[in-house]
Amino acid sequence: MKPPINKDTRLCMSLSGRPGNFGTRFHNYLYEALGLDFLYKAFTTTDLPAAIAGIRALGIRGCAVSMPFKEACIPYLDRLDASAAVLQSVNTIVNEGGVLYAYNTDYLAVRQLLAQHRVDPALRFVLRGSGGMARAVAFALRDAGFASGTILARNEAAGQALAHDLGSQNCGFIWQPEHWQPQPQEAQMLINVTPIGMAGGPEAAALAFAPAQIAQAQAVMDVVASPAETPLIRAARAEGKPVITGAEVIELQALEQFVLYTGVRPSAAQVQAAAAFARL
Amino acid sequence: MKPPINKDTRLCMSLSGRPGNFGTRFHNYLYEALGLDFLYKAFTTTDLPAAIAGIRALGIRGCAVSMPFKEACIPYLDRLDASAAVLQSVNTIVNEGGVLYAYNTDYLAVRQLLAQHRVDPALRFVLRGSGGMARAVAFALRDAGFASGTILARNEAAGQALAHDLGSQNCGFIWQPEHWQPQPQEAQMLINVTPIGMAGGPEAAALAFAPAQIAQAQAVMDVVASPAETPLIRAARAEGKPVITGAEVIELQALEQFVLYTGVRPSAAQVQAAAAFARL
Repeated sequence: MKPPINKDTRLCMSLSGRPGNFGTRFHNYLYEALGLDFLYKAFTTTDLPAAIAGIRALGIRGCAVSMPFKEACIPYLDRLDASAAVLQSVNTIVNEGGVLYAYNTDYLAVRQLLAQHRVDPALRFVLRGSGGMARAVAFALRDAGFASGTILARNEAAGQALAHDLGSQNCGFIWQPEHWQPQPQEAQMLINVTPIGMAGGPEAAALAFAPAQIAQAQAVMDVVASPAETPLIRAARAEGKPVITGAEVIELQALEQFVLYTGVRPSAAQVQAAAAFARL
Repeated sequence: MKPPINKDTRLCMSLSGRPGNFGTRFHNYLYEALGLDFLYKAFTTTDLPAAIAGIRALGIRGCAVSMPFKEACIPYLDRLDASAAVLQSVNTIVNEGGVLYAYNTDYLAVRQLLAQHRVDPALRFVLRGSGGMARAVAFALRDAGFASGTILARNEAAGQALAHDLGSQNCGFIWQPEHWQPQPQEAQMLINVTPIGMAGGPEAAALAFAPAQIAQAQAVMDVVASPAETPLIRAARAEGKPVITGAEVIELQALEQFVLYTGVRPSAAQVQAAAAFARL
């Protein structure tokens, strides 16, 4: 049984350009279910340094960081976990007595999901997107052993930079423009890290990859979390392909944040219930 | 019915050296009773400028300010209401779209209570104490028309300064040391603004004024809020004297904060229920 809010209740929060409800509902649901004396609230800001100074000065326990603050926050933090340092992108701040630690649980979640689903790192991937989340997914693939893949991106500069950054250890990563048509052996795993297929977006009904590509792929991943089954995931399932969904990614990254903030790991059933509540 | 915490829920908070539970329980109780989408949480800080920068940057709606921050916060705020400006002491910050307004609801509450209880401003008072709350009470007395009174204080510098500041408009205010024995006509209203009589303190059982003084006084006020009936209030009631209690002061000042933050004025019954819950 969670106590009523009191002077010792710990606050966790999020900072993003456009706050959503997923984190607030997910974390508060689990605090209640587990009887933890915590509270979670989403914020936005027009003054990032002052917002982070406030987290430190008020002893706010943890903060999820979303667009457009993931890179910009780094100069104001104290210590970067490898997950954040490799990407130079932070999605989680943990305040340990005034020392701010930075993590990237998107990266950690994708690595865990690749292992859980036993995706073969010998597959050559095509990853569509070049933003912050695309970087998290691409580095997670590389660090999981994937040695060869294509970044498909409209933004040539960002796509080239991502391929280059991945390739500093390995030269099997290249950028291609969006109209590029891969050979089947170049597109064994298809990964969407764009808003294509996102509920409420301008391309909600669109497929991120052509049906013929899906039919030829051996694995499909989508980071779009809403709807739980995007057009890409639905098409892949219809073809009997193994999939990793955006709902899995968002749930697991939120769970890893929860564990970092509270030190408590909820059961899989509790996490599923919290995620279902959060999506309502 | 209050909605579950969500992205639009507004946060109010307190900043004090040693956070208590009264404000957190009082405000959250009323948010629930009135179905307001607000949340209240107590904080402390070791970095006041950063904490206030955080209030501004995170869009936190309001903040109660307690010892030792009431004067120190002033340079970081934007606009002082007369209640705060006259005292140079702030107990309430209201954030209007990034502009921080400062108030002193202790002062406002004491002025209201003097009017409600129809205390005659012709009475000559003895006020014991010289801290921030003593200043709030003394200025409220003066601005309610009291023209003559004594500041009884161990700290001569603070006591002299308070008498001087009050007397810049009127020369009827003087300081006296604690061992001073007033004549009955000099002590028609007795006011305690020290921790004497506070539950859990070193002088919990002590009387702030001598029984003979209480017997001769025409009105008695205590700002100690816990217990609801201090030794001074109990003795005054036993003598049939009209009293203003610290519980009344803390409830009314908290209510005025509530109205400033939310724009909603709860009923007297709701306020009493919230205060009773907050004292549990």
